[in-house]
Amino acid sequence: MKEQLTIVKVGGKIVEEDLSLQQLLNDFSKIDGHKLLVHGGGRSATALASKLGVESRMVNGRRITDEAMLEVVTMVYGGLVNKKIVAGLQAAGLNALGLTGADLNYMISDKRPVKEIDYGYVGDVKQVNAAILADLIQRGVVPVLAPLTHDAAGHLLNTNADTIAGEAAKALAAFFEVTLVYCFEKKGVLSNEDDDESVIPTLDPHSFSTYVASGVIQGGMIPKLENAFSALHSGVSKVVITRADAIHTSGGTIVML
Amino acid sequence: MKEQLTIVKVGGKIVEEDLSLQQLLNDFSKIDGHKLLVHGGGRSATALASKLGVESRMVNGRRITDEAMLEVVTMVYGGLVNKKIVAGLQAAGLNALGLTGADLNYMISDKRPVKEIDYGYVGDVKQVNAAILADLIQRGVVPVLAPLTHDAAGHLLNTNADTIAGEAAKALAAFFEVTLVYCFEKKGVLSNEDDDESVIPTLDPHSFSTYVASGVIQGGMIPKLENAFSALHSGVSKVVITRADAIHTSGGTIVML
Repeated sequence: MKEQLTIVKVGGKIVEEDLSLQQLLNDFSKIDGHKLLVHGGGRSATALASKLGVESRMVNGRRITDEAMLEVVTMVYGGLVNKKIVAGLQAAGLNALGLTGADLNYMISDKRPVKEIDYGYVGDVKQVNAAILADLIQRGVVPVLAPLTHDAAGHLLNTNADTIAGEAAKALAAFFEVTLVYCFEKKGVLSNEDDDESVIPTLDPHSFSTYVASGVIQGGMIPKLENAFSALHSGVSKVVITRADAIHTSGGTIVML
Repeated sequence: MKEQLTIVKVGGKIVEEDLSLQQLLNDFSKIDGHKLLVHGGGRSATALASKLGVESRMVNGRRITDEAMLEVVTMVYGGLVNKKIVAGLQAAGLNALGLTGADLNYMISDKRPVKEIDYGYVGDVKQVNAAILADLIQRGVVPVLAPLTHDAAGHLLNTNADTIAGEAAKALAAFFEVTLVYCFEKKGVLSNEDDDESVIPTLDPHSFSTYVASGVIQGGMIPKLENAFSALHSGVSKVVITRADAIHTSGGTIVML
């Protein structure tokens, strides 16, 4: 039987404020079994870009990444946020290892083709070399994945953290019984956006379609859930959408096929 | 018999300008056997600090690292410079892995005690966990070490890259036949600073003392050579001081006991 691996994706404010980061690291370290953390850092990137006079442009929630912005996100995601998390996890007794897709060549992307929009140095994941990650995890290492990949030709590429979590989960499902946990600021997917307690306990493709059709599920939650279903179709055992402070409990919305 | 490992330390302009970085990565990839790269990045850190209004203060060639400067060096050393090198080495066919001391807990430091000068978040190396590095190297991984360590209590510490190279070389000498190569802008240690061809072919502790007494060897070269002798005393097989474009040749100054 395969060993358990929990992949947690956190983003936004949680990892960018010292107090909430500390709480997250405590909660994360309480998860049983093998663990892997994927983080964002967009607010810090926007803040640094602004200080450096680099304009932040978003289209459909995705960051346009020109050369100057690529330097900013490489510094913030690969350096500041990633290393702060790694040092914090080490202090909590977890043997963390921070990675971009270029490190160990673990995730290769294609630069997104220019259609109506030129996203710049943004990567669409093409290949995950999961064996070397799996080997490290089996030896007790906790990978901490920054939202950066590479094209294997010398270029780093800005890549959505939800996507990285989903792709890593799929590829690692060959080696582990994978639970994928997407954290956001609510306790789960809500049936009533004005009621934080209205968590939908389980979602399958049919109920998902119904909620999308009725407008209950909308915006950024739609691609997140599409990632979730895609992960389940590719062998991931369980996907949970929950609040960061509940990652070591069984709360939240469970996505199933 | 132990396998060969070449540890190359590069700093300054070499890794911070795209053209010279590319040349370095080509030269580095030509080195036979196992390889490890240690890099600096001080000029980029000073440039970013300046843009952000963070004052750079140096004492005896060492950077005073307050909280704002620690963020700058974490971004520049751990992110920008390290990940650019890693992506470049991957493109050159080497399976690079960028690391700070916090990653895999491979190098632990003590925050430097405050005496006449408060260096701030600067680390003096206390412990190197070489086994996990050695294992990765034996499996074909090329570690790329940023000049950052941690205190194992959640804090990153700015640490001199020459020191990191020396300490890594000593600790890895238990596993490999280690050659340590310090690169700088000259072809080797010069007997006449006005003649770039006046490379001293070999230096031992006796000739080193003589050159220091006569003022031929001075400044930053003295701690570099002290690191070199210390490494040799701790089992490192060979130390070479040379120019970056000669790392895959046998040129430069060979330091011996």
